[in-house]
Order: sequence, then structure tokens, then C-alpha cells
Amino acid sequence: MDFQPSERTLAYRQRLIAFMQAHIEPIEANYHKENRRLNPDGQWTHWDVSPVVAELKERAKAEGLWNLFLPDAKLGAGLSTLEYAPLAEVMGHSLLAPEVFNCNAPDTGNMEVLYHFGSAAQQERYLTPLLAGDIRSVFCMTEPDVASSDATNMQTTIVADGDEVVINGRKWWSTGIGHPQAEFAIVMGLTDPDAAKHQRHSMVLVPLSTTGVTIERMLPAFGEYDAPYGHGEVRFDQVRVPKANVIGDLGAGFKIAQGRLGPGRIHHCMRAIGAAEKALQLFMQRGQERIAFGKPLLQLGGNLERVADMRIAIDQARLLTFYAAWKIDQVGAMNALAEISAIKVVAPNVLQQVVDETIQLYGGAGMSHDVPLTQLFAVARALRIADGPDAVHRNTIAKVELAKYRGA
Amino acid sequence: MDFQPSERTLAYRQRLIAFMQAHIEPIEANYHKENRRLNPDGQWTHWDVSPVVAELKERAKAEGLWNLFLPDAKLGAGLSTLEYAPLAEVMGHSLLAPEVFNCNAPDTGNMEVLYHFGSAAQQERYLTPLLAGDIRSVFCMTEPDVASSDATNMQTTIVADGDEVVINGRKWWSTGIGHPQAEFAIVMGLTDPDAAKHQRHSMVLVPLSTTGVTIERMLPAFGEYDAPYGHGEVRFDQVRVPKANVIGDLGAGFKIAQGRLGPGRIHHCMRAIGAAEKALQLFMQRGQERIAFGKPLLQLGGNLERVADMRIAIDQARLLTFYAAWKIDQVGAMNALAEISAIKVVAPNVLQQVVDETIQLYGGAGMSHDVPLTQLFAVARALRIADGPDAVHRNTIAKVELAKYRGA
Amino acid sequence: MDFQPSERTLAYRQRLIAFMQAHIEPIEANYHKENRRLNPDGQWTHWDVSPVVAELKERAKAEGLWNLFLPDAKLGAGLSTLEYAPLAEVMGHSLLAPEVFNCNAPDTGNMEVLYHFGSAAQQERYLTPLLAGDIRSVFCMTEPDVASSDATNMQTTIVADGDEVVINGRKWWSTGIGHPQAEFAIVMGLTDPDAAKHQRHSMVLVPLSTTGVTIERMLPAFGEYDAPYGHGEVRFDQVRVPKANVIGDLGAGFKIAQGRLGPGRIHHCMRAIGAAEKALQLFMQRGQERIAFGKPLLQLGGNLERVADMRIAIDQARLLTFYAAWKIDQVGAMNALAEISAIKVVAPNVLQQVVDETIQLYGGAGMSHDVPLTQLFAVARALRIADGPDAVHRNTIAKVELAKYRGA
Amino acid sequence: MDFQPSERTLAYRQRLIAFMQAHIEPIEANYHKENRRLNPDGQWTHWDVSPVVAELKERAKAEGLWNLFLPDAKLGAGLSTLEYAPLAEVMGHSLLAPEVFNCNAPDTGNMEVLYHFGSAAQQERYLTPLLAGDIRSVFCMTEPDVASSDATNMQTTIVADGDEVVINGRKWWSTGIGHPQAEFAIVMGLTDPDAAKHQRHSMVLVPLSTTGVTIERMLPAFGEYDAPYGHGEVRFDQVRVPKANVIGDLGAGFKIAQGRLGPGRIHHCMRAIGAAEKALQLFMQRGQERIAFGKPLLQLGGNLERVADMRIAIDQARLLTFYAAWKIDQVGAMNALAEISAIKVVAPNVLQQVVDETIQLYGGAGMSHDVPLTQLFAVARALRIADGPDAVHRNTIAKVELAKYRGA
Repeated sequence: MDFQPSERTLAYRQRLIAFMQAHIEPIEANYHKENRRLNPDGQWTHWDVSPVVAELKERAKAEGLWNLFLPDAKLGAGLSTLEYAPLAEVMGHSLLAPEVFNCNAPDTGNMEVLYHFGSAAQQERYLTPLLAGDIRSVFCMTEPDVASSDATNMQTTIVADGDEVVINGRKWWSTGIGHPQAEFAIVMGLTDPDAAKHQRHSMVLVPLSTTGVTIERMLPAFGEYDAPYGHGEVRFDQVRVPKANVIGDLGAGFKIAQGRLGPGRIHHCMRAIGAAEKALQLFMQRGQERIAFGKPLLQLGGNLERVADMRIAIDQARLLTFYAAWKIDQVGAMNALAEISAIKVVAPNVLQQVVDETIQLYGGAGMSHDVPLTQLFAVARALRIADGPDAVHRNTIAKVELAKYRGA
Repeated sequence: MDFQPSERTLAYRQRLIAFMQAHIEPIEANYHKENRRLNPDGQWTHWDVSPVVAELKERAKAEGLWNLFLPDAKLGAGLSTLEYAPLAEVMGHSLLAPEVFNCNAPDTGNMEVLYHFGSAAQQERYLTPLLAGDIRSVFCMTEPDVASSDATNMQTTIVADGDEVVINGRKWWSTGIGHPQAEFAIVMGLTDPDAAKHQRHSMVLVPLSTTGVTIERMLPAFGEYDAPYGHGEVRFDQVRVPKANVIGDLGAGFKIAQGRLGPGRIHHCMRAIGAAEKALQLFMQRGQERIAFGKPLLQLGGNLERVADMRIAIDQARLLTFYAAWKIDQVGAMNALAEISAIKVVAPNVLQQVVDETIQLYGGAGMSHDVPLTQLFAVARALRIADGPDAVHRNTIAKVELAKYRGA
Repeated sequence: MDFQPSERTLAYRQRLIAFMQAHIEPIEANYHKENRRLNPDGQWTHWDVSPVVAELKERAKAEGLWNLFLPDAKLGAGLSTLEYAPLAEVMGHSLLAPEVFNCNAPDTGNMEVLYHFGSAAQQERYLTPLLAGDIRSVFCMTEPDVASSDATNMQTTIVADGDEVVINGRKWWSTGIGHPQAEFAIVMGLTDPDAAKHQRHSMVLVPLSTTGVTIERMLPAFGEYDAPYGHGEVRFDQVRVPKANVIGDLGAGFKIAQGRLGPGRIHHCMRAIGAAEKALQLFMQRGQERIAFGKPLLQLGGNLERVADMRIAIDQARLLTFYAAWKIDQVGAMNALAEISAIKVVAPNVLQQVVDETIQLYGGAGMSHDVPLTQLFAVARALRIADGPDAVHRNTIAKVELAKYRGA
Repeated sequence: MDFQPSERTLAYRQRLIAFMQAHIEPIEANYHKENRRLNPDGQWTHWDVSPVVAELKERAKAEGLWNLFLPDAKLGAGLSTLEYAPLAEVMGHSLLAPEVFNCNAPDTGNMEVLYHFGSAAQQERYLTPLLAGDIRSVFCMTEPDVASSDATNMQTTIVADGDEVVINGRKWWSTGIGHPQAEFAIVMGLTDPDAAKHQRHSMVLVPLSTTGVTIERMLPAFGEYDAPYGHGEVRFDQVRVPKANVIGDLGAGFKIAQGRLGPGRIHHCMRAIGAAEKALQLFMQRGQERIAFGKPLLQLGGNLERVADMRIAIDQARLLTFYAAWKIDQVGAMNALAEISAIKVVAPNVLQQVVDETIQLYGGAGMSHDVPLTQLFAVARALRIADGPDAVHRNTIAKVELAKYRGA
């Protein structure tokens, strides 16, 4: 056992921190404020790519701080899941950084899908520009009318018809669909209801410009629209794409989904841990600066105990996520289901709790947009639902535990 | 001991429920959607009084469901704090109802202040139209640059100058200041820093049209602006009002603040309990309708245990608040400090917890504006800060407990 | 609504407190120390009735502080469940007091069963001496080999055979069976497995001297044997008693059990609340007296917040229990199932939590027998299991909540 | 980073497990039952060394499963703190195993003190027979009359007098003092109240046979006396030992104490984690075997969620402890204070929580001595107090966190 990060990780980490301090931190608050401009009806407004972000992306690419998430040494940085994890944490200190380094969801997950399961043609057409940061992408899985925690509830259909497949249905919380550069979605749907349980679904690449694709509205999460990415509700109405757009084969949807979620959950959780560190930092700063009843807030009541509990919770979440990453690297995501589910429960809950405490210390300011706490809260709260709600992951963990006693 | 509400309470309760079912529930969702229209920069937009609300207010007044909060039998309903408490709970099921029945914060608290401490002239000028629902009012206490949990930190000054007082300072989270009918604010500030600790501050009536009053911006709470009331940041710049606008006397601010907060906290907490009941109702409905893994969500995992815990928590919060109301009625708010602080800790936390669980059951829908859960969450979260954060109230309770051992 | 206890309650309360201060507190610590004398094998030892207790009982009886739990004005004090509740709390400050006032479990529950369901002969033979405090009794329900949380699991049989019934089976946690004056047990068992679910079981009076009754061993709870009462494991081996010993009728067991448990749970919970007050008192005393890092423990870290949380939790538990008692008085225990289950979850958990915090403040002393904290802990921990574990009660509450939505 | 244990650890782990399954598990339940035999007054009884244990120790020594805790390759196994940690976890599954492998507290800590700080003469006289398992030892630190969480409160004095030092004072919770082979104690006391804060105290070796050493009584923890080791209250009355018995120098007590506690806390916490695994195992077994309401308990209500939460909590505690062990190995205990304090808070609390849940599942059996749950509970509860209560450790963590912001 050894808890020392690799040399490569340490070097990238230092460079990321320097880049973020120099280029992202100074502009972030203002960037988010700008991005909150909405239409007069208080709803989403379409948005051009910010020149600031475009420039930062070019700079990051030039510095080689680009696609660090991808284990391929040629297309990405060639880091293992475990080696990348501490870098995802660093990026999690900022809501803007992941995009700048081309390491943001849902694009990373989609790139992974295309990298592992895409045909050469699909890779050329979609993966290459994604890796270059020239286009953005969407992942359409969750549906509004059913409990999406149970994937077998999925109602959208993907049906073969000659050389084409036809997609019908409705998705929501399709993240990134508001982005001006969003070019395609990976859509998951039901192909064969009579097949074995995990061979019924397919994933297909759907250009957003295809006839029959309608973005019905953009959805706020705790009032945040997350422009320019955004979360949309989309209707697929007799949408036709070539069969060549099917990823893997018809019926391979579940297998691909599982593969997609392993490293992606590490990324999400490490960013959540980074965000929790950021919130704790805000807690410490406010707690030292603000005075009440003659003392800094930190010295009042149980606040120092809270600091200890937050420090413990964050450190435990980080170690658990490192461990899950290591397991993915060693035995693959399918043999690390319990570990992945565990971090998916732990990390967002820790972030939610730390942010809630920090909001309490900031008082009114904590609820406003003067500090990024409500944004971080929305991230945490959404993450407890996205990619499987807590309850589903707890169930996975319990099943794996039970299995230990079955063979015995 | 007797847990049976009074006949009057029961009768009012039935009528309130009928009114709300007939007139408020059908229009509420749409009303809030309309009210979320903002300026193109995503910020607050000024707002005319909704004709729907104006009409509902007239109807409520005509039916005698009006000013139920006021213990005066002539000006209000003549109900005790305890008799009114279950009615505040009923109103809490809706975010619109309190206004319709002229029982909304901060106007109720301001009416109480004027009722108990206002001069005849002040009552005629400000209380009468408030009771009629013709104008709205604001309470300016919290300040942005200091820890307002410690009221002695207050920096705004209210200084006598001949027949006038001069107000200088900055307040925020001044609720109601965005309302088109908002006419005046009760402003609290420092008059004599050398006086005894609780005789330093004053309260003064300031018409919003007075020269030197500037609303600098409106503040969102978890992205909600709560139009048309809103929460503002206000600057007072050499604002002059006649000395006759001082409530009570110069130096009486603390005494008045304490009196204001007793019944007001009962109202806040009972509304929070009503909101928690509303959230639990949404939990039960969704839990029965949505199916996952072949069962209604309610039948999965620990969800029924959660129902039990929420039921227990809500019932305990209600009984504790009834008890605090009874104590206020029996011995006065100043002799019920620990009881009032206890409900101020309990009720918002219960609401936050119940809403959080309900959001989890609703998944993505819970975070959007399709259900009112994020609004209720913002209410709960704000209430844990407003009128004294949890920590301050826990401290009050502990001090009262300690005092039991001092004399002994 | 009114939170003022009745005059009778207040008067009894004052007299109980005076009696306990004068006669019980001074001898209690030593009494329990004496009672921990065991056999050389570390196991239970039989025990004569303590002359100290016998004398105290006589004194209490003489002062009319006797059988206060019984609503019958002739045989008991004629207090309602709600009127008695605050008196049970007072007794709960001491582990010895309930016995002194003839208000201890399981005798009170057994007296209630005999009072409500016993034949005249049964009452004369068993109820009269119990009310006089001359004999003690046992309640045999829980069984070692099955999950007794599900009463339908019960394996002990009570089968009619001519003029007799024959009892076979094994019970444990039969409280009171070690008492030298224990004369009989009320045994519940299965009579007709084919009857409707709640008409299969019977309750029968079994003198402990009957052939075939064997106390196999006495059971410790967290190392405490609770002498002289004790908890036993008992074998019933072809035990024969006259049919006249059946309470009510064969098949009436469930109905009687339900009736038995309503007021009994109020008593248990109020005593738990009294015990929690006692623990909080110990917390406050130690917290003021002990000095660490230059301050009384109470002033360190989050200890005052803990005081507030304990105060809140205890007050909420008390109010909830009063409310359940009121409901029993108004509509009967069968219509107050959710309320009774709620207090059964809340009160023991509050006691456990308060005791755990207090142990932490006492350090090593808290774990020893120098303070009664481990005894109170054992009481709390046992009560979370006895009379239905938490999970069963949460389930009952959820079912009642669900039923509100069924008819609607 | 790498989570794979070393080859040596894996090999020892396998052998330990095999030994425990073959030789300890079969006899453990009976051993503890035997050890609960007490004197007729329910108090501690002196106890010969069990021939069973003596034989097991010889066997373990012969197999080389002996002194694995000691980093010295000649005297012990030469394992690093991190390498030993998983082995301590394995031993923690049993309450008897640590003694069998000569790895039990407080002897390991005392051996470490003598190994690092003892003179050659002290090592020969005390360390050699301890390493051989021929004698046992005691550590006397906690005192009954002061808050020992603040070590500067210590009242026992160790004063130089010519060639001797004189010890006066009273200690309690002196673990191991009941053991028939206990030969000496390491006593900490105050030497120079005017010295710098951490140079006031000394540690001295005191043979228990020295005149003036009186064991006043043995203390139960939740009713458990932990024979044959036991926890004693000891009086030191003008106890004189040669100055050569002082460890290090007069005034070196604090420095030695700190060094003693680093690895020792790893051992304690890893054993607690092993105990938690044992409890979870019992939970799973009972949960599958017992049937209520037609299903195995595990399938009822939130029990599977509890399994997930316990699994998560245990895994997090283990990783955090591994991390702390690694830090000790890398930078020394004095530079890993926050990490050591973190595990000291986490591990006992996790154990307490897991055991509490498991007791709940076992019902009455869980509170009795039929399963070892109350023993494990007492271990957990005591460990939250021993070696610094939770509050002190939370304070240490917060201070380290604060320090990060000071230099910045």
C-alpha cells in the first residue's frame, strides 16, 4: 500500500493549480454572473460561446492541460483512473475549470463511450472534434414520465427500420443541450422488450439538427440553468438516423452504459470533493473574519467541531474514491460495482453537508449569488439524483454484501 | 391539559381550507410561474399587483378571513397566539395564501409593532392601511457587512437632529421592499453606543419615498426572488424623517424587537409546519404513483421508515410550537425565550429535511420548478438564518437551562 | 388547547417529588449496589425482598401515593392516562421509585389486563394482592427462537384439554420472574392456528409454582440483571392450569395485548423521559463542576449546543407522549396506534442519546457503576426492543399515514 | 498510490485467519463465559491464567504469529505500521486473539515505550519478559478526580528524592492491573509544575509489589470487568522506586506519551474496524436466518440500506486508518496528529453504530451474553473516551486545519 500520488499526477496537479489561480479564479465570479442573464420570462436564453472561455481553452490546450481524463496516451494524457482522480479534484474547486480543460461532463463520458465502443467512422465524425473541444455533446437517458432510477422503465424506443433506426420518446435533464456548440446526443432507448433484461436497449448517435428533435424547454435546478450548457427536455418524434449511428450493436446499450459510468463517477465524485474543499475553505475564511459576540465565528459554539467533522468527511470521501478508482484500474468497473456505488452515495452527500454548513456560517450572503454556495449546493443535490439516486446505489452495495454470504 | 383546538379555531380552520381549495390551489402553480418573469439580465423586475391576488384579498376580507393573526377582537380576529397557530399552519400549505389573508410576513410583524408600540398618529397613518391590505411594509434589520446574528454589531445609525432623526447605513434581506405597494420600512439602527446594551438601538418609520433611500439590488435566495415581495439591499444616505416617526422612544429598539419576534416566530414556524405537511403529501402521492423495480416507490427500501420519521418530526414540531404559543399567551414572550428559540431551531430544520427527502423521491422533477419543492426548500433554508441563526437560538436555550442551576 | 396539568396532577406531582427527595434519593445508590451481588459464577442470585423497599412501600401506601396509574377512582387514583403521565415522568427519575409506588412494569400492565378483562374470580385471586403490593407478577410473551417482533411467529401453545388448558413452549425476557414475591405469569400463546389472524392466541394465568414451569436462567441486559425483578428464560412443559385461568376467552389474546399496551407504553415513555431529565441533570452538574483547559466542560466546544439539542429532544418527546395519552383518553388506544407507536420510537431513542452524551462528559466514571448512566442506558436500549422494536413501530406509523390516502 | 497490501502482510493475514478459525473461534464463547465468574458481591474476582490461553500463546509463538506489532525485525516481525494494520484488523474479530498473539493493549504500548525510550537495564528487566509473554503490564494515566482529557490536570506527583523518586496519587481505568501476571505499571505524573507545559511530567516504572501501591477496586465498563485483565483504581501512597526506573528523563513524560499513542491508536482503531466487520457479519447472518412477516429480516424496511451504510462506514474507517498509518510511517506520529485524531474519532463511533444496529436486529439476544454484542459495544464506548475523548480529538483536527490558514 502506498498513498503517494504518482510523479505525473503531482506534476499535472501543480500546473493545473497554477493555471487556475492565474487564469480562472480572477474571472470566474463575473463569468457566472454574466451567464445568469435570462429571457424576460425568466427562462433560459440561448447563449454564444464566451470568448473568454474559448481563449482559456486554447491556452489550456497549448499547455497540454487537455483531455487529462482519457487513459489513452496518444489522444489524452494516458493517466490511469487513479492518477487522474486528484486532478479532477483540483478542477472541482471551480465550476468553470472542467470545461476549460476539456474534462467536463457529459462530454468526457461521451468521449469514453466513443473511444471504447465507437466505430472508426463514428470516432472520426464525433470523437475527434470532441477531443479538440470544437463541438459539445449531450447524453439523453433520463425520462420525465417514469422512475428513471429503474432503467428498465425506459419508454423511448429505438427501432430498426431498414438501414435506419427510428427514435421516439421524450428525455429530460439532457445536460449540455443548450450549448451553442452542442452538435449531437447519445440517446439510449428500448429496442427489443422481449430480449434478456440487459440486452433490450441501444445507444445511438443523433445529430441535434435531425428532423424530429425538439428541445421543448430548459430546466432549472434550484433556480440555476447552468448556462451555456443547460439541462433540456427533448422530444424525439419519428427521428431517423442511419443504422451506422448505433453504437456497438442494437441491444448493447446497457453494456455501454455500465462502462460509461465507472470512470465518470470517479470524475463526478472527485470534482464534488474538490468543491467540498472549496466550501470548507470559504467556511474557514468567513469563520476567521466575521466577528460576533466578540469572537471570530470559528471560535463560537460547536463551529470548530464542525470543521473537524467536515475535514474527516472530506478526507474519507477522497480516500474511498481513490480506492474505487484503483479497483477500476485493477479489475474493471464491472468488478467494482459496490465501490463505485459507495462513492456515488458518499461524495455528493458530503458536499451537500459541507455546503449547508457553510451557507449557515455566511447567513444571508450564503443564499445569494455573492458567493457560489447555492451553485455548489445545486451541484451536490443534483448529483444525489443523477446517475442513479442514493437508494439505488445503497441497494447495489447491499446486494454485493449479501453475495458474500451466498457462496459461503 | 387538553389538545383540542378551540371552537373558533376549528371553524376558521374549516373555512380557510375550503377557501384555499376553492380559490388558491387552482391558480397557485401558474401564479408562481408568472412571477418568475425577470429582466433580461436575469435579475429582479418590478411587478404590478396581480389582479388575481387583489381579487382574492377582497374575497377573503369579505368572508372575514382577514387579519386572523391579530389578537385584537376589533381590528383582527381576537384569537390568542395559540388559537391562531393552527390557522397559520393551514396557510403554510401555500406560498400565496398568507398574503391573501393579510397574514404574511413581514407585514404581520410590522402591524404588531405598530399595534403595541405605535403612537395614535403612527397607527392612523400606517397601521390602518396595512390592516386594510392597501399598502405593504418592510422590516430593515440585517446588514451585509457584519454578523447580524449579534445585533450589537449593527452599524446603521439613527441619530436625533432637532425635530428629525437622520438615518445612515446599509441593510439587506429587507423583505417586501420590491412590492409595488410597499410604502414604508421599519428601520432599526444604533442611536447611542454608550447606553446600556439593550437601550442603544431605535426603530423608526421611514417612507420608502424619502430622499436618500436607495434600493441597490434585489437578492435571490437559492435563485428565487420571491416576487412581488422580494428581498432588497437598501442604502440609507442621510435619510431624514420627523422624530414623530420614531416608534416608542429613541433607545427602545431592542425592547420592541423582542416583542415583535415572539408571535412572529410562532407564525413562521407554523407556516413551516404546514409547508412540511404539504411536502409530505407530495411524498406520499409520488411514492404511490411512481413504479420502480415493480413496486410503488413507497414500498422500496427504507421509504416507509422515512414516512414514519417525517410524520414523527412534523408532529413533534407542531406540538412544540403550540406549547410555545401557549406559553407566550400565558406568561409573555419574554418569559418564553427558550421555548421560542426551540421552535425556531426545530421547525425550519424539519421542513428542510422533509423537503430534501421529497426532492429525492421526485428525482429531476424535484429540482425543477414543476413542483414547488425548491421554493419550499429556499423557505426552510432562509428561515434557519433569518430572525437569528440556529446557533444563536441553541445558545439561548442553553443559557436558560444553565440558569436553572444557578439559583439552586 | 391547554398545556396546564390538572390540579390533581400538580398536587400528586409535588408530593411525589417530596417523597422521593426525602426517602428514595438518599438510599438509591446504595440499594442498587447491594442488588448487584451475584452468585460466584457471575450469574443471577435469588434475593429476598429488601426490608428498605418493603418499608418504603408501606409508607407510600399510607400517604396515598399508591396505584396512581390505575384510572379507577376506587382501586387506584382515578387519574386519566394524561393526568398520570407527568407522575410517571417523576418516578422515572429513579429506578427504584416505580416499585415503591406500586407503579412498576410489568405489574401495572398485568393489573390493567386483570382490571379490564379478568373474571371476578381472577380479580380476587390475582388483582387484589397485586394492588396491595403483596405479590408480584410476570408477563411471558417474547420467545427466544423466533422473531418476536412478528407476534404471529409465536410458538408456545395454549391448548384446551377438558377443563384445563395445556401450555408448552419457551419464553424469555420474562421480566420480574426473579422476584421473590413473583407468584404468577400471564402467558400468551397460540391456541388455534387456523383462526383469523388476530384470534389465534390466548392469554392465561399461570402460577409459577405449577408443575412444568422451569426458570432456566436469568438474562443480563448490558450486564445488568435488574435484581430483584430480573429477566428470565422459562420453559413451559406440559403445564396444566384450569380453563378458568384463561383471561377473557381462548382466542382473545391479541385483543387483550393491544389494550394492555396503550397506557403501558405511555408509562414506559414517560419514565424514559424522566430518566432523560435525570441524565441531563447529571450532564449539567458535571459540565459545571469539571474543569478542562481552564474552563468548565460546559463551556467547551459544542457542549452548550448539545444541551440545547437535548432540551429540545426531551421537551418534544414529552409533548408527543402527552398528546398520545390524551388521544388514548379521548378515542381509545386502538384509535391512537400511530401516536403510541411514535412515542415508542421517540422516547427510548431520546433517552439513549442523552445518556450517551452524558456518559461522554463523565468519561470513565460514566461507564462505571459510580453513576447510574449505564443502567439508564440499558433501560433505553432494552426499551427500543421490548414491546415492539423501532422498525415495527415505524411501520405502524407509515401504514396509518398511507391509510389517509386510500380513502381519499 | 496503491491499495494492495504487501506480500508479507498478505501472508501473515492468511496465517492469522487460519489460526483463529482453528484455535480461537471454537473456544472463545466459552472462554468469555468462564471469565465472567465473579465474587459473591458481584465484583471482580482474581483469576488464574487460563491454561487454554497459555497453550494458545505457546502455539502462536511457535508459529511465528507473535509480536507482529513491533517494527523491529529482530524482536518483532519488522512490519511497518501500515503493514501491521490489516493484521490488527484480523485480530479485532476476536476479543481473545490480541492476547494470544502478544499484541494486546496495554502491553503493546508499554513495549513500544520501553523499546524506544527504555534504558538497556529497563529493557532487560521489563521488555524482554513482555516480548516473551511471560509477564503483563499496566499503564496508569487517567485519574478519577480531574478531567483527564486535559493532561495538564494530572494530580499524581512523581518527585525526585535522592536516588529515588516518590509517587503519590490516584489513578483509575488502569487496564490490565487485574491480570495475575501483571508485574509492573508505567505511571505518569507531575514532576515540575513550573516547567514548560510539556516538560512537567514524567513516566516511571513501578513494580506492582512496591510498598504503597494499593489496588482499591476493579471497575466495570457497561457491566463488563474484562477478566483477567480488568481495569483498576489504584492508590500510590509514598511509593518509592529507584531513579533508574524513570523512563527517559524526569520531564520527558509528554514526549513519550505522544510517541506511545501514534501506532497504538492505529492498533486500537484497526481492531475496532475488525470488530465492526464481526458485528456486520452477525447482522448479515441473523438478517438472513430470522423470518418476520414472511421475509428474512434483511428484506424488511430499511435494513438493506443499513447494510450499505455500515459497509460504507467500515470501509471509510479502514481507509482512513491505513492512511494515518502510512503517514506515521512516512513522517512520524508528531506530523500526523490530525490524521491520528481523525481515526480516533471515526473508528470507535463506527463500531458503536454498527454494534447498535446489530443489537437491534438481534432483539433480546443482542442485549444478553448469548452473542458478544454488548462486549463489543463496551469496547467501542470505552474507546470513545480512552486515549482522549472525541471532543479533544476534534479539537486537534480543527487546530491543524486552522494552522493551514495562518501562514497563508
